[in-house]
Amino acid sequence: MPAAAVSSSLLLPPVAKPLKPPSSVPIRTLSLRPVPAPLSARSRLLGHFPIRAAVHIDKEIPENERLDTCLFSADGPDSPAPIRVRFEKMIREVQEEVCAALEAADGVGKFREDVWSRPGGGGGISRVLQDGAVWEKAGVNVSVVYGVMPPEAYRVAKGKTGIGCGDSAVNAGPVPFFAAGISSVLHPKNPFAPTLHFNYRYFETDAPKDSSGAPKQWWFGGGTDLTPAYIFEEDAKHFHRVQKQACDKFEPSFYPRFKKWCDDYFFIKHRGERRGLGGIFFDDLNEYDQELLLGFSTECAKSVVSSYIPIIERRKNTPFTEQHKAWQQLRRGRYVEFNLIYDRGTTFGLQTGGRIESILVSLPLTARWEYGHQPEEGSEEWKLLDACITPKEWI
Amino acid sequence: MPAAAVSSSLLLPPVAKPLKPPSSVPIRTLSLRPVPAPLSARSRLLGHFPIRAAVHIDKEIPENERLDTCLFSADGPDSPAPIRVRFEKMIREVQEEVCAALEAADGVGKFREDVWSRPGGGGGISRVLQDGAVWEKAGVNVSVVYGVMPPEAYRVAKGKTGIGCGDSAVNAGPVPFFAAGISSVLHPKNPFAPTLHFNYRYFETDAPKDSSGAPKQWWFGGGTDLTPAYIFEEDAKHFHRVQKQACDKFEPSFYPRFKKWCDDYFFIKHRGERRGLGGIFFDDLNEYDQELLLGFSTECAKSVVSSYIPIIERRKNTPFTEQHKAWQQLRRGRYVEFNLIYDRGTTFGLQTGGRIESILVSLPLTARWEYGHQPEEGSEEWKLLDACITPKEWI
Repeated sequence: MPAAAVSSSLLLPPVAKPLKPPSSVPIRTLSLRPVPAPLSARSRLLGHFPIRAAVHIDKEIPENERLDTCLFSADGPDSPAPIRVRFEKMIREVQEEVCAALEAADGVGKFREDVWSRPGGGGGISRVLQDGAVWEKAGVNVSVVYGVMPPEAYRVAKGKTGIGCGDSAVNAGPVPFFAAGISSVLHPKNPFAPTLHFNYRYFETDAPKDSSGAPKQWWFGGGTDLTPAYIFEEDAKHFHRVQKQACDKFEPSFYPRFKKWCDDYFFIKHRGERRGLGGIFFDDLNEYDQELLLGFSTECAKSVVSSYIPIIERRKNTPFTEQHKAWQQLRRGRYVEFNLIYDRGTTFGLQTGGRIESILVSLPLTARWEYGHQPEEGSEEWKLLDACITPKEWI
Repeated sequence: MPAAAVSSSLLLPPVAKPLKPPSSVPIRTLSLRPVPAPLSARSRLLGHFPIRAAVHIDKEIPENERLDTCLFSADGPDSPAPIRVRFEKMIREVQEEVCAALEAADGVGKFREDVWSRPGGGGGISRVLQDGAVWEKAGVNVSVVYGVMPPEAYRVAKGKTGIGCGDSAVNAGPVPFFAAGISSVLHPKNPFAPTLHFNYRYFETDAPKDSSGAPKQWWFGGGTDLTPAYIFEEDAKHFHRVQKQACDKFEPSFYPRFKKWCDDYFFIKHRGERRGLGGIFFDDLNEYDQELLLGFSTECAKSVVSSYIPIIERRKNTPFTEQHKAWQQLRRGRYVEFNLIYDRGTTFGLQTGGRIESILVSLPLTARWEYGHQPEEGSEEWKLLDACITPKEWI
């Protein structure tokens, strides 16, 4: 399974055993959870469940209260925490910040929260604000999943990045993996207020159990992109400027590279048009220092509020007509087409039996499909379509 | 390319050269079209377009007027016409009958018609009635497509039915094929009036050009199924009874077999529920006499009006609340999920670059996705969901 597949659903394949914590680096005490039974005991416990394929994960279980961490962790001295722990902490903080900002912008609507865990390992927090004053539907989900993946999936994942794809792994056993991410789609009611999507994720595998010395693999992925029904150049420029600033703090090639990647990824092939005005997108990223990429992902995720909320404040109360609303609904239909047909996170999540409500929270509350609709040339609707067909440079 | 792939979009792969008419059976004169240039001349003309893959078809061209036939045909004596000619005639008649019945039931809305052809061969007639008094969106499309398919696609098609899959075809050249079908999805406005889908199609291939003596292949496929938002037992029984009557005229095993096939096919796997209350569905059918299957397909297609219009007449003016409408919209969301993710005709049509507006006319005008919606146990909404989760025997 390629790391790419984690994408917006953040749900990952067969979960049967917890990832063994690295013995050399004690994990910071974050947990209120009981420490799971040792690997061997859990293995025995779960041993009668065969690993069926790369395409199934255990059914999630609702939890009554939020867990301090979904990570398998143990008490230890206050030493530098591994990336996975810091990544989980970051996405949980971003979830708090973004939800607070969205509730403040709405003024009325409040987030509903669903906490869930998986028998095999990990869990998540799904938050949804539906039918508020400003938001038609806003979902902000965090999940942390770990377990073992079949060796075929490991080979696919390794092959994708071309690293360490030696024969040593070919006959190896199941591979412990860890995946964590934050994923969010925000659909406002006002047709002049744009939809936002963002998603930041981190994935790692241990070496296969009987492939000693094989390197541990890790990747970062993510992005933030804007999907308006009408173009306000000021909004598009502001949004892209914030993305570029976040990128430029780390590497000057990031913004142009990830801006193009975003335009390429959110392409609705059968329509010959993009879903929206893009932003940044990257996947399977591991050719930089791990600390640099954690910093970069953190910077991007922490920039979501400043890149988006000022636009919402400007547009949330703009008067509109039924025609404006109908056009927004048609564009929401395109959003549905992209997410159900092309989005790797959604399609992977659906195929693997992930938590359906979390995966499909990205769909708008309402959408529309008119036969043979063509905006009049030169109209505001046509200008949006034109920018979706031919991506523009906004800064 | 499996014949299955034709399904509801009726659009088929690489079209480059017309199917050579069988020399032994003159085709009945139906055409007002000029007879195309001989194969060799057309081959030269199109020779600079390489066949890229099994997944591309030429862009369609709008036509100003309906053609008497989309078939490549020539003058000849009035002898028994081949199946392909009679199938085209049948689906054109059914299109007329169904559209007339739908306009009569609506009383206000009229069908818009788009006629198109393909440079490589064939064409179609798309008819849509949108936002009428009774119909939210009703599409009734006919298409006839022919040309050549790459040998790999031919092998897949043959392999699927397990007939004549000898090595003789492995190194063969492009295979002439013919595909015709009628496809329709009818979404009423009233939440108590059910959605109907029907689709009947016929597919054939000639032997590969350099694989002398290989048998010609043919298949029938199709079905009619009902998708209400609320169950009226009287409606479901009537609908299934008409399907059974059509089946029983030909073969007693057809109804139970095709009813189950329908329940299996329209399964939304990630939801664990069917799209609706089913009906009949069959695909790749060629283990009966060709005349029998033409007669059966004709009987089914000609039963659409009597199976459906009485239900619409009973329900089209039933008073309803906003809650009823919202539930219908949620079920329409499921319809979108099935069509975009699972329906082979839709997914194949989108992948091959078929006529988007015709393929996606199956989508409702409006649909809805609520986070975490669960109908109350025992409610009318719950009863529908229950019947979608566990298919019932209606007669």
